[in-house]
Amino acid sequence: MPRRHITGFSNPTVKFVRSLREKKHRKREGKFLAEGLRLLTDARECGRLPKMLLMAEGRDPHPLLDALEQAVEGAGGEVIELPGEILAKVTGKDNPQAVAGVFAEFDTRLDRIDRSAAPIWLVAHALRDPGNLGTMLRTGDAVGAGGLILIDDCADPFSVEAVRASMGAVFTQGIAQARWDEFLPWLRGGEGQLVAASLRDAQPYRGAPYAAPCFVMVGNESRGLPEEYEMACDLRVTMPMRGRADSLNAAVAGAVLAYEVLATLENRG
Amino acid sequence: MPRRHITGFSNPTVKFVRSLREKKHRKREGKFLAEGLRLLTDARECGRLPKMLLMAEGRDPHPLLDALEQAVEGAGGEVIELPGEILAKVTGKDNPQAVAGVFAEFDTRLDRIDRSAAPIWLVAHALRDPGNLGTMLRTGDAVGAGGLILIDDCADPFSVEAVRASMGAVFTQGIAQARWDEFLPWLRGGEGQLVAASLRDAQPYRGAPYAAPCFVMVGNESRGLPEEYEMACDLRVTMPMRGRADSLNAAVAGAVLAYEVLATLENRG
Repeated sequence: MPRRHITGFSNPTVKFVRSLREKKHRKREGKFLAEGLRLLTDARECGRLPKMLLMAEGRDPHPLLDALEQAVEGAGGEVIELPGEILAKVTGKDNPQAVAGVFAEFDTRLDRIDRSAAPIWLVAHALRDPGNLGTMLRTGDAVGAGGLILIDDCADPFSVEAVRASMGAVFTQGIAQARWDEFLPWLRGGEGQLVAASLRDAQPYRGAPYAAPCFVMVGNESRGLPEEYEMACDLRVTMPMRGRADSLNAAVAGAVLAYEVLATLENRG
Repeated sequence: MPRRHITGFSNPTVKFVRSLREKKHRKREGKFLAEGLRLLTDARECGRLPKMLLMAEGRDPHPLLDALEQAVEGAGGEVIELPGEILAKVTGKDNPQAVAGVFAEFDTRLDRIDRSAAPIWLVAHALRDPGNLGTMLRTGDAVGAGGLILIDDCADPFSVEAVRASMGAVFTQGIAQARWDEFLPWLRGGEGQLVAASLRDAQPYRGAPYAAPCFVMVGNESRGLPEEYEMACDLRVTMPMRGRADSLNAAVAGAVLAYEVLATLENRG
């Protein structure tokens, strides 16, 4: 395929890629944007290639960039070169990167999740901050989780901020989106222990009887989990709060809990 | 003091308060901005009162707001009423709050830190994200840390984003700012174990011999800790990484480690 060059801000492709910074356009197109050589290399190594690769003219050569370019062209994707300042406008203000990719969104239906594939799964209810969402994906990767299940109205896992905060885990972790009244029957249709940090009728998070597959659930940043959701859990655990606060950042709480589950399962295994 | 009312965007006080969203103005004025009734109530309960309290006209009455107003007036501070849309402009775009306060910045010299006051201290090197910084303050509060020591060029702990993410912990946690070559001599001038998550010559983070006062150090979001800093630690520990990633979000790593330290110290104590 001949290499396309773009020279103007008003080019329709530039407008299209820019539009992917907004959720409504991502949903309409079924596409999302990821930036940076490291992120795109992670994606490639996981077998995820962008449909469209955008590279700044005059960038420094890099063997990983060559590998990416070849892989995208080999898979029938499009490679586009454009001036660095246009690429910076496309991908957002902070930290302009010399390369970006347009990916097809993944299928996030719950029935795509194979719960037997991993001992830990993260679950988030109404998580609104894309940075927290991306951080949970990253933590999930670190603890060997299978993925992140997003309950009710969460931030979009395909937003530029979530993708960036995931540090590539958006390409390695399974992602599902479901309403609570879909999720709970699905969970109860198979093995799985649902665990949440809670102050209601909870036991200490250290030494609690975690069991795989363990679904570690955190709630919304300001309201936490609805009581109904907590009461549906198999295990409610509490973390020490030695100060004035009665809660942790949602992504932090999920991580502390997930690392405790990992230690418990591995000690036992 | 007679209550002041402001009606226009161009009022000098509005301009002054707006300017505090920028670091250079905060430093020049020695003041910072905190928003929301919950945050300001936390501050009040810790004995920190704003010099200036801004309240939206036509706000819903609230006993905590009354308490705040009385406390500020009693301490000789100024209470200002202004239209909600002006207050929203002052405090930033997202989540406009009906109340905001202008506080004097705290003294953040290292020699203000009394290491014997708490068993855990958090330390961050070149932490650039104000959300991460605020989250570390919040975590510090939760684990009963004494405070957060910011090494080298970190985000400003008094930025609106850091203050917000701290969920009030900016008022409860000690905060110090220092260069590494001030910090290390200070640390070695007294008791204190310096611990970092590391891949160099490290032992598992579970079961490591943590000792109070334990200084838990995390590094810059993209580059981590310089080797020199890691090698100066009394203890280097490693957390399991079961996926593709070789690191966690800085605030997450600090939290997982700090909770492990807390559990170790309390089991022993």
